[in-house]
Amino acid sequence: MKDLAGRVLAGEISAAARAISLIERREGDRASLLSALYPSTGGACRIGITGPPGAGKSTLAGCLGQRFVEAGRAVGILAVDIASPFSGGALLGDRIRMQGLANDPAVFIRSMGNEGRPGGMCSAALDAIRVMEAMGKDVVLVETAGVGQTDVDVAHCVDAVVLTLVPESGDEIQLLKAGVMEIADVIALNKSDRPGATGLAAELRETVHARGEVDGWKTRIVRTVGTDGEGVAELYETLEAYSGHLKNGDRLAVLRERQIRRELRERVEGRLASRLNAALERKCLDRAVVRIHAGEDDPYNAAEGLLTET
Amino acid sequence: MKDLAGRVLAGEISAAARAISLIERREGDRASLLSALYPSTGGACRIGITGPPGAGKSTLAGCLGQRFVEAGRAVGILAVDIASPFSGGALLGDRIRMQGLANDPAVFIRSMGNEGRPGGMCSAALDAIRVMEAMGKDVVLVETAGVGQTDVDVAHCVDAVVLTLVPESGDEIQLLKAGVMEIADVIALNKSDRPGATGLAAELRETVHARGEVDGWKTRIVRTVGTDGEGVAELYETLEAYSGHLKNGDRLAVLRERQIRRELRERVEGRLASRLNAALERKCLDRAVVRIHAGEDDPYNAAEGLLTET
Repeated sequence: MKDLAGRVLAGEISAAARAISLIERREGDRASLLSALYPSTGGACRIGITGPPGAGKSTLAGCLGQRFVEAGRAVGILAVDIASPFSGGALLGDRIRMQGLANDPAVFIRSMGNEGRPGGMCSAALDAIRVMEAMGKDVVLVETAGVGQTDVDVAHCVDAVVLTLVPESGDEIQLLKAGVMEIADVIALNKSDRPGATGLAAELRETVHARGEVDGWKTRIVRTVGTDGEGVAELYETLEAYSGHLKNGDRLAVLRERQIRRELRERVEGRLASRLNAALERKCLDRAVVRIHAGEDDPYNAAEGLLTET
Repeated sequence: MKDLAGRVLAGEISAAARAISLIERREGDRASLLSALYPSTGGACRIGITGPPGAGKSTLAGCLGQRFVEAGRAVGILAVDIASPFSGGALLGDRIRMQGLANDPAVFIRSMGNEGRPGGMCSAALDAIRVMEAMGKDVVLVETAGVGQTDVDVAHCVDAVVLTLVPESGDEIQLLKAGVMEIADVIALNKSDRPGATGLAAELRETVHARGEVDGWKTRIVRTVGTDGEGVAELYETLEAYSGHLKNGDRLAVLRERQIRRELRERVEGRLASRLNAALERKCLDRAVVRIHAGEDDPYNAAEGLLTET
């Protein structure tokens, strides 16, 4: 792991890919790997790209990545798919790769599923983001599969959230208002050359206006057409503006501290759950049930004993 | 606690009431109290009475309790209300009390809320059931507030589940089919003198028929009118038949063992969660966040440390 960490820190692509695989598969001594990388992390601008399926998130992530590269930044793109195992995440990554970005040495693209295990996705995404930071990326774009809770979870791993919508999303807005819109710092109204874009833009402006400023920032709406790059420059400028806003005062520090607090809780809960499951697999539970059934123990003593064994 | 246990075992009503209060408020050394009582528990016939609000569960519990008393059995009635704190549970208990049963020395009635804390209700209900068994009750009727998950939870604490429906429940059946109906051993179609009872009975019979026998028992449907006692004798006989079915072979032993397994898991998870919350209250999390923020620690080491402190 020490060696792997050294190779990631040296910017070796195969080492970073291997590290993210370990995180995805929850294998190996990830904690010591990530501990070794940690001092070299936290420096990138972390941008989440969320939104419903079909909104063009991959295309937009590709365009944005290209724009950051042109600005001389090293870019990591992480496609997170909580719903599917490897295949789904790979699909997302493939879509981005098709844009030719993958041939650019400044860009590292990786997709990550969760092997069908619920929970812990926020920690796993943070781990992968940190690997990308440790290998030297200045910007990490995190694309989600757009399945509700993942979008909300990803907001706890990034500095900025771009909510991607399309004119057809009109009907979903009511639904989105409840949760996902609340976490959007920037809304990309993508495929905005389609009918209904102007109406949706007006509706979104109204919603954003009603919400007002949150900590000095009012959600901005940018009309884009990802397939021909229209509006991507404005989206890039808007993100740079938001990044500047975060760096003004201690906003970024406060945000990151809140995220670390959340991350710690998730990690501790996850490890407690793992311990409990490990204990149950070790047949401790079976033995306790047998003892209780035989009248040699009771559920209260037994629970205390199981707690010690976990 | 030793003294309290002794008084409960001697059948002292005030001691049993005090014990259930401790369980409800999660106060005192409940584990040692319940450990002391445990060898004297498990002997009662435990019957859950579930169903939507307004189905007449309290009235039916009162009638059934009366019937068991007439058969020479000592009866405990536990009204469990997960949604409300004390007041809600007390209300349920009061409804039963109004029937005059409370004056019968063979009957012990107690309501239990959960103080607005979610989770652990199954363990708490089991604790209260055991107190009633330790004080000498032969039958424990557990009435739930009828709020979905509580109904399903209560099934894990009892031997038999009576699902109480009314003709007006027709529309809810589709909903109920999914979960609550699956756990019903007996369906009491209460207020069956009202219009729609015959239609609903036919519909229920069809559903029950489609499900078929489960471990040699096919859910039985009994039409009742709790307010004038109609059908209560048949409901009583049906429960006695089900009780006999359970005692045939090792069915009851297998059922109880499965419940104890579940109970142990719930208790261990509950204690782990308590430890975690206690650790967080002890400011461990705050200190960890500060250390990470200062660059003196990382989230991976810190999570391991928090795990040790919990």
